[in-house]
Amino acid sequence: MNAVTSFDKLDVGFDVPAVPGMLEQDIQTPCLILDLDALERNIKKMGDYAKAHGMRHRSHGKMHKSVDVQKLQESLGGAAGVCCQKVSEAEVFVRGGIKDVLVSNQVRDPVKIDRLARLPKSGARIIVCVDDLANVADLSAAAQKHGTTLEVFVEIDCGAGRCGVTTTAAVVDIAKAVDAAPNLKFTGLQAYQGAMQHIDRYDARKEKLDVAIAMVKDAVAGLKAVGLEPELVSGGGTGSYYFESASGVFNELQCGSYAFMDADYGRILDASGQRIDKGEWENALFILTSIMSHPTSDRAVCDAGLKAQSVDSGLPFVYGRDDVKYVKCSDEHGVIDDPDGALKVNEKLRLVPGHCDPTCNVHDWYVGVRDGKVETVWPVSARGKAY
Amino acid sequence: MNAVTSFDKLDVGFDVPAVPGMLEQDIQTPCLILDLDALERNIKKMGDYAKAHGMRHRSHGKMHKSVDVQKLQESLGGAAGVCCQKVSEAEVFVRGGIKDVLVSNQVRDPVKIDRLARLPKSGARIIVCVDDLANVADLSAAAQKHGTTLEVFVEIDCGAGRCGVTTTAAVVDIAKAVDAAPNLKFTGLQAYQGAMQHIDRYDARKEKLDVAIAMVKDAVAGLKAVGLEPELVSGGGTGSYYFESASGVFNELQCGSYAFMDADYGRILDASGQRIDKGEWENALFILTSIMSHPTSDRAVCDAGLKAQSVDSGLPFVYGRDDVKYVKCSDEHGVIDDPDGALKVNEKLRLVPGHCDPTCNVHDWYVGVRDGKVETVWPVSARGKAY
Repeated sequence: MNAVTSFDKLDVGFDVPAVPGMLEQDIQTPCLILDLDALERNIKKMGDYAKAHGMRHRSHGKMHKSVDVQKLQESLGGAAGVCCQKVSEAEVFVRGGIKDVLVSNQVRDPVKIDRLARLPKSGARIIVCVDDLANVADLSAAAQKHGTTLEVFVEIDCGAGRCGVTTTAAVVDIAKAVDAAPNLKFTGLQAYQGAMQHIDRYDARKEKLDVAIAMVKDAVAGLKAVGLEPELVSGGGTGSYYFESASGVFNELQCGSYAFMDADYGRILDASGQRIDKGEWENALFILTSIMSHPTSDRAVCDAGLKAQSVDSGLPFVYGRDDVKYVKCSDEHGVIDDPDGALKVNEKLRLVPGHCDPTCNVHDWYVGVRDGKVETVWPVSARGKAY
Repeated sequence: MNAVTSFDKLDVGFDVPAVPGMLEQDIQTPCLILDLDALERNIKKMGDYAKAHGMRHRSHGKMHKSVDVQKLQESLGGAAGVCCQKVSEAEVFVRGGIKDVLVSNQVRDPVKIDRLARLPKSGARIIVCVDDLANVADLSAAAQKHGTTLEVFVEIDCGAGRCGVTTTAAVVDIAKAVDAAPNLKFTGLQAYQGAMQHIDRYDARKEKLDVAIAMVKDAVAGLKAVGLEPELVSGGGTGSYYFESASGVFNELQCGSYAFMDADYGRILDASGQRIDKGEWENALFILTSIMSHPTSDRAVCDAGLKAQSVDSGLPFVYGRDDVKYVKCSDEHGVIDDPDGALKVNEKLRLVPGHCDPTCNVHDWYVGVRDGKVETVWPVSARGKAY
C-alpha cells in the first residue's frame, strides 16, 4: 500500500478534500484544484489590460461562485465589482462583503424581487437588468417597501438570442420608465453577446461583435437624445473583451472564464491564430483525478465522471500528457485510453474541464496549490445558488 | 405584481427553496421537486416485483444521494440496503443509519481504504468491489488495523467496458485471495452491465444481458468448484432487472433510476414496444422552473440552465405540454420555443431532466409535493460526495 504521508495526522471521514500544508499528492480526488500562480497571473493580466484601456472590469462571479476568488480579482486585478446571474448568488457576494453587485439577468418572481430590494441595506450597490416594461413597477414597489434604491441596466439582445430587447425604441421606453419610477435609478446598458464567445476564428467573432456594437451605439444615441446618457455600458467576455474595449461605447467588461480557463474556451483562436490557452491565458483550474482501475493493458479508469464535471461543452483533456486521452465519461468514472500502459493505479492526473462554470458548480471546494503543496481551501461560496 | 401568498410569513434570504405547508406555486425556482404519490408508487412497484421474483433489492443510492429516499425504499419497497459508488457516499448513508452498504466500485487510494475500513464499526455491513489482486492486501491490512471485517464482491466486466475482470480464472483468483486474507470475507459478485441499460429496443438489451448472464454463470461454476459459492450475485438496472431476475444466477438487484425516472431512461421500450415512462414507471422527479423573460412572441426563457441540471444525456422535456419545447440550455437559462405565445412570465413548468443522477447532484434539496402543497423538504444528503 502507498504510504499515507501528510494525511497521517488527520482524522479521516472529513468533508473536505484537503487541508493547507498537505502535499498535493495526498489531496482526495476527484476535486477542483487551482494553480494559484497561474490564477494570479491571469487576474493581474486582465486587470492590467482593463486599466490600460480605460475600462472598468466587473468580473463575472457566475463562473467561480467564490467570494475568495472575487476578492482576489478586486485586490490584485483591480476589479470594480462582481456580476452574477441569480439573487441567491448576489446574497452570497453581499454577505461576503462585495460592494458593487450586478445581477446580469432579469428578476421577475415577486419573492426574488423582494429579496433583491433588501440587499442595498448592506451598503452595497445593487444593479439589476430589465428587458420588459412590466418589470419596472414591481422593482420600484419593492425598493420603496424596503426604503432602498435599485439601479437598473436595460438589457439589449445584441445577438445571443436569449433575453433582452432588440430595438432602441424599447431601450428608451424602459429607461424612461425606470427614470420616472420611485427608488429606481437608470444606470446603463447590459449588452453581452454570449453566443459569439466560443466561435473559434477571431475574425468571425469580430463580425458578430461589430453588429452588437452598432446596436449599442444606436441605443446610446437614442438615450442621449432624451437626456438619459448611460453611466455604464457593460458587456464583454473572454472571447471578445478587446472588441468592446476598442468600441468607444462600452466602458465596463464582464469577463469571467479568463481567470480559470477551460477546454472549450481554450480552443478559440486569438488574432494571430493561436489558441488562447497557449499564450493569452493559462489553465489555472483543474479536476484532480486518480486512476482507480487499469483492467486491460490499454484502458485505465479514473474517478472523475459526471458528478465531478459538466460535459455540456465536451470532454476534459488530460493536462500535460499527449500519451493518454480521456475518452468516455459516465456518472462516477472516466475511461482513459492508455495505449502504452503508462498509467498506474493511484496515479493522479490533472484534467482541464470542458466548461468551467457548471463544473465549478458541482464542487464544494477549491483547493489552492503552489509548489506542490496545498496553500488554501476556499469554499465554492455560491455553489448551488440557482434561485 | 403577482401576490406573494404563502411566502408572506417567511423571512427571506433563506437558503432553502421551500418549506413544508407552502403552496407549490410559491416554491422558489429552479429546484427539484418530487411528486410523492408517483415516487411512492414506483418504490412500492419495484419492491413488489423483487419480492414476487425472490430477489433482494439493493437500491442504488448514487442516483438520489438521499438518506430519506433510501429509507423510503427500505420501509415501503422492502429494499435490503443501499449501493453507492464512493466512500464519501457510504459515510453519509452509514451516518444516516443505513445498515447494509455496498460500494459498487473499486477503492484504491490508501486514505479512502482507511476510511472504508472504519465504517463497519458503526454496525453496518460494508461490502466493496475488487477487480485487481493487488487491492486485496491493502483492504485486509486496513480492516485489521481497525479490527473490522470488510466484505468483498469481485467485479466482472460483463460488457460495460469499464472496471472489472473478464475471465472466470481471474474471478476465482481474487476470490481465493480474499477468502485467505485476514478480516476480509468473500461475499459475492458484482456484475452490472451499465452500457446496455439505455439501448431502446428490449430485444437488443436482452441480447447484451444474455452475454452477461453466461459470463456470470461460468464464474459461479468456477467458484463452486473451489468451494467458494457466492452468497450474493448482484447487478441489474432499470433497463434490465427482469433479465437478471429470470437468469437463475443473480439474486440481488441494484436498480436506481426507476424511482425518479428521467427523459433518457423514459425513451427505452418495454417488451411490448411501449416507452417505460408510459406505463412501467412514472415521472416522479422534476425540475420546477419559472419563465423569466418572453422577449419575442415565440421565445420564452426559463430559469433552469446548466447550473440546475446535467445535459449529458440530452435536454429536458416539458412535462405535460406538447405546445412548448425546451430547445437550448446555457448556464442559467433555458430557451423555450413557444410558437403560440402560450407562456406567461412567472408561469412555472415541470421539466423532466435528461439524466437524473448528475442532475440531482447539482441540487441541495428535494421538495416533496402532494396535492399542490409542499409536504417535505429533504436534503440531497450525499450531494457532491464524489471522493
